[in-house]
Amino acid sequence: MITKTIKLNETASFDTYLLNNSKEYNVDKKRPLVIVCPGGGYAFTSDREAEPIALKFNSVGMHSLVLWYTVYDQVKNVPRNALIELAQTIKYAREHAEEWFIDPDKIIVCGFSAGGHLTLQIATRWHEEWLAKEVGATSDQLKVNLAIPCYPGAVPTRFEKGDYGFAHQLIENPNTANERMYGNDNPSDEEVDEYNILLHVSENTPPMFVWHTYEDVLVDVSNSLQLGCKLREFNIPFEMHIFEKGEHGLALCDRTTARKPSHHNKHVIHWFTLCEEWLSNYID
Amino acid sequence: MITKTIKLNETASFDTYLLNNSKEYNVDKKRPLVIVCPGGGYAFTSDREAEPIALKFNSVGMHSLVLWYTVYDQVKNVPRNALIELAQTIKYAREHAEEWFIDPDKIIVCGFSAGGHLTLQIATRWHEEWLAKEVGATSDQLKVNLAIPCYPGAVPTRFEKGDYGFAHQLIENPNTANERMYGNDNPSDEEVDEYNILLHVSENTPPMFVWHTYEDVLVDVSNSLQLGCKLREFNIPFEMHIFEKGEHGLALCDRTTARKPSHHNKHVIHWFTLCEEWLSNYID
Amino acid sequence: MITKTIKLNETASFDTYLLNNSKEYNVDKKRPLVIVCPGGGYAFTSDREAEPIALKFNSVGMHSLVLWYTVYDQVKNVPRNALIELAQTIKYAREHAEEWFIDPDKIIVCGFSAGGHLTLQIATRWHEEWLAKEVGATSDQLKVNLAIPCYPGAVPTRFEKGDYGFAHQLIENPNTANERMYGNDNPSDEEVDEYNILLHVSENTPPMFVWHTYEDVLVDVSNSLQLGCKLREFNIPFEMHIFEKGEHGLALCDRTTARKPSHHNKHVIHWFTLCEEWLSNYID
Amino acid sequence: MITKTIKLNETASFDTYLLNNSKEYNVDKKRPLVIVCPGGGYAFTSDREAEPIALKFNSVGMHSLVLWYTVYDQVKNVPRNALIELAQTIKYAREHAEEWFIDPDKIIVCGFSAGGHLTLQIATRWHEEWLAKEVGATSDQLKVNLAIPCYPGAVPTRFEKGDYGFAHQLIENPNTANERMYGNDNPSDEEVDEYNILLHVSENTPPMFVWHTYEDVLVDVSNSLQLGCKLREFNIPFEMHIFEKGEHGLALCDRTTARKPSHHNKHVIHWFTLCEEWLSNYID
Repeated sequence: MITKTIKLNETASFDTYLLNNSKEYNVDKKRPLVIVCPGGGYAFTSDREAEPIALKFNSVGMHSLVLWYTVYDQVKNVPRNALIELAQTIKYAREHAEEWFIDPDKIIVCGFSAGGHLTLQIATRWHEEWLAKEVGATSDQLKVNLAIPCYPGAVPTRFEKGDYGFAHQLIENPNTANERMYGNDNPSDEEVDEYNILLHVSENTPPMFVWHTYEDVLVDVSNSLQLGCKLREFNIPFEMHIFEKGEHGLALCDRTTARKPSHHNKHVIHWFTLCEEWLSNYID
Repeated sequence: MITKTIKLNETASFDTYLLNNSKEYNVDKKRPLVIVCPGGGYAFTSDREAEPIALKFNSVGMHSLVLWYTVYDQVKNVPRNALIELAQTIKYAREHAEEWFIDPDKIIVCGFSAGGHLTLQIATRWHEEWLAKEVGATSDQLKVNLAIPCYPGAVPTRFEKGDYGFAHQLIENPNTANERMYGNDNPSDEEVDEYNILLHVSENTPPMFVWHTYEDVLVDVSNSLQLGCKLREFNIPFEMHIFEKGEHGLALCDRTTARKPSHHNKHVIHWFTLCEEWLSNYID
Repeated sequence: MITKTIKLNETASFDTYLLNNSKEYNVDKKRPLVIVCPGGGYAFTSDREAEPIALKFNSVGMHSLVLWYTVYDQVKNVPRNALIELAQTIKYAREHAEEWFIDPDKIIVCGFSAGGHLTLQIATRWHEEWLAKEVGATSDQLKVNLAIPCYPGAVPTRFEKGDYGFAHQLIENPNTANERMYGNDNPSDEEVDEYNILLHVSENTPPMFVWHTYEDVLVDVSNSLQLGCKLREFNIPFEMHIFEKGEHGLALCDRTTARKPSHHNKHVIHWFTLCEEWLSNYID
Repeated sequence: MITKTIKLNETASFDTYLLNNSKEYNVDKKRPLVIVCPGGGYAFTSDREAEPIALKFNSVGMHSLVLWYTVYDQVKNVPRNALIELAQTIKYAREHAEEWFIDPDKIIVCGFSAGGHLTLQIATRWHEEWLAKEVGATSDQLKVNLAIPCYPGAVPTRFEKGDYGFAHQLIENPNTANERMYGNDNPSDEEVDEYNILLHVSENTPPMFVWHTYEDVLVDVSNSLQLGCKLREFNIPFEMHIFEKGEHGLALCDRTTARKPSHHNKHVIHWFTLCEEWLSNYID
């Protein structure tokens, strides 16, 4: 296992969980890489959606890394900034594909909640020129091969002017929610739409595995349903599991990610097995 | 096991699969009843979506019955006629609830393809007065408590005038597809919309478990996706599983329903376990 | 579904659970038959180990039947008598193989507790001449192709003289336990050994699937362990699952067979899936 | 993840796979530790039974480490020497329990093949005085709380005099197999019996989870069956899964450990889930 922390900038880094290359079997095998994006409303990055997820993908034979993107008021336009950091991470991973025995055609992004929104941003926008330019890469270097958004935001919320939003009491002089997300407190429709995933789905969007719970009151299940309709419209293959019961933020549904009893869920827990079986169509 | 065939009319009947009432344990326990509606494009009723499904529900402790509704050109307005026959079946089951140890508050309808459309018809329209009148029942007697539409049609197709539709070569002097489905070869929008499930979802619609495959080319997955959006709109709880790979008509995905190798599917087969776990929220 | 009750004699019969022969798919397919032998200490036959088991095998595409063998003091030498009735049932099934679409090379016996002992009796002794003579068959007609003993007795108990044994208070003038099991109250070693499965394992014994719980206080797990050692000695392939937790008599571990909360067991419940997968090596 | 390599001596070391202690949830939670002992006939230590196993336990919320014990002719009495190294490892882990957030009452050993024999050695002998003395510990510090021997050797083989044994062609001037295992080429019964697990089971032996395949031709299934009988004799609770099909050395049965197609096994793969569920009785 190669565990390193790679710094992207003052406020962002990623931790690697890279499987050893055995000299005994599967020698020099190139493996898929899953980039894990924790959630936390772009205000923080939750440990519950980080290392345990990375290890779960490790346990089925894939490399992984956890991206700790910049959150909260350390920067404006947090989602856009995170998109750029995720693009940098993908570029970095592809550049180290040889060294780390990564299959460069199997770069997979998996994110939760806000991290799911981030996953959808890169999945739908990796090919855009401005992004390649921004990170000094070719679009090919930024390509997302598969995406696994979990209870993702897809359609952004416009906040009331002056609303400080989620968790603002944790810091001094917070930006308003609109400043944080869109760069100013009175964003134009265009500025909000920038983060509306439904407007970015295209033939460049990779196959996806999506899951959500109907009962989610933080990110409404309609985010995933509308995403599904849009993917269908563009003939992007996908798998989608909507479980009726279960709150927002279930992560792996077991002891590895549970902070409280309701985080254990004997039914929703199947999502990972379903995901692994779905992945098996694409990897070996 | 009580296996009887009950005739509804000259062209429709149902077969019962009723669990024995043991004198040793669970004595006189009232069990849920699942009414199974096979598919077949309203042109026939497929054995692949009949007895094996009934037995599967038996195997998890539920009564079941298979409805052989009237198909093809034995009647006009086939879907509407099938709806009435299904209502008659529910009425009959509730009337025999004592005798057959059925829990009258756990009447569940499960159908496949066209049978899924039929399931959605009764689930969204059981409370309509005309239907109660038609079968000589109160609406309470026709209530559907839960629904399990499997790769269901939800939005009806209007056919070209003169199109004989599916399997017409099997019979002499067939009706046109429009005559068969809507009662005349040039149906009005209203006549077609009559069978558009999206227009009938309401607060009377019961919780549902829906599944489909993305690759289905006979009944497009958008039928289920749009249904999901509509259920969400009306706050009807549901669970929905969309598997990427797999053709139309997979039924149970194993030897019990496979006619050919592609009917075996090691991934989609999970739908029944997922369904049983979902049901466990509602039954004991 | 063909459900019939076939009378073997005044005190024994069997109920059939035979799948319909579809005209649409798998037409005229010959299916395996599972003969289910409920337990109950040879003193009664438990409903908990009867119909639900039969239906479970139906649900994976196999015919089944439940044998209600003669129990308690309706006859002496109950286990020997049950063996003969089971042989008669197998003969009957093979004679009706054509009519019932049974594969005559896939006759499987599955029994629980005392029914597991009965299963092991026939599995190890089907080829003995006296048995064929007794039921007027050839040994080939009595062959057991696979066996599924569940928490089975294998090594018989010799009771104290005058001990009336299990449930004797339920009837008037009961036989002693030794009379019931071995034919007289002071059985010889030979008479007891007659029912010691370990002494009958031979190259004629079919492959087996065995399961038990370590905590079983009614039939000690050593019965299965010793059986396993003996099967290994004779190169008889087998699968054996010993679960640590769980009481005697768990049957299917779910609502279909539970009489009390401890009959639900989320872990031991896997036995049936494991069994079905094991069977898949032998059937299609 | 804390990944360190700790050197025990010139020829032995262990690699840690320690979960991060989150500041957000389960803060400072003490977790079980699984010590993984790869197999390889005491001649080498297989990568296939090392990191992937460690990661699998990580993925269900447990710390793990892989012990690379001294093998082949780098030392005589290889099994005895490995036992001592394993004892040193346990001592080290308990000494670092605070620092690494290990629950010192949940030290679990899991080994495969020869590593399974090693697991059984420590599980049955951790309390012996000579061992505590040898590693400068109290017996309490060496206690094994649970054991997971996988297709383990239990009863040792005495080789022919002059037999160089397994893989001897890989090195120059190899010891004979008897020298390697027992310290001299003509071992006494006592010297061989030293490694016979059946002679060491006692009331000090912890609960176990054992699995094996019937078809294993390298380590006969009777090793596990006899172990089971002995554990039962001493009232040591255990779970044991014997799968019929499958060769020796299946490890995790999936892509993470497969060197060839027959290392994939869709049935035996359940062992890990069964093991995790069994563990859940002992950990939280």
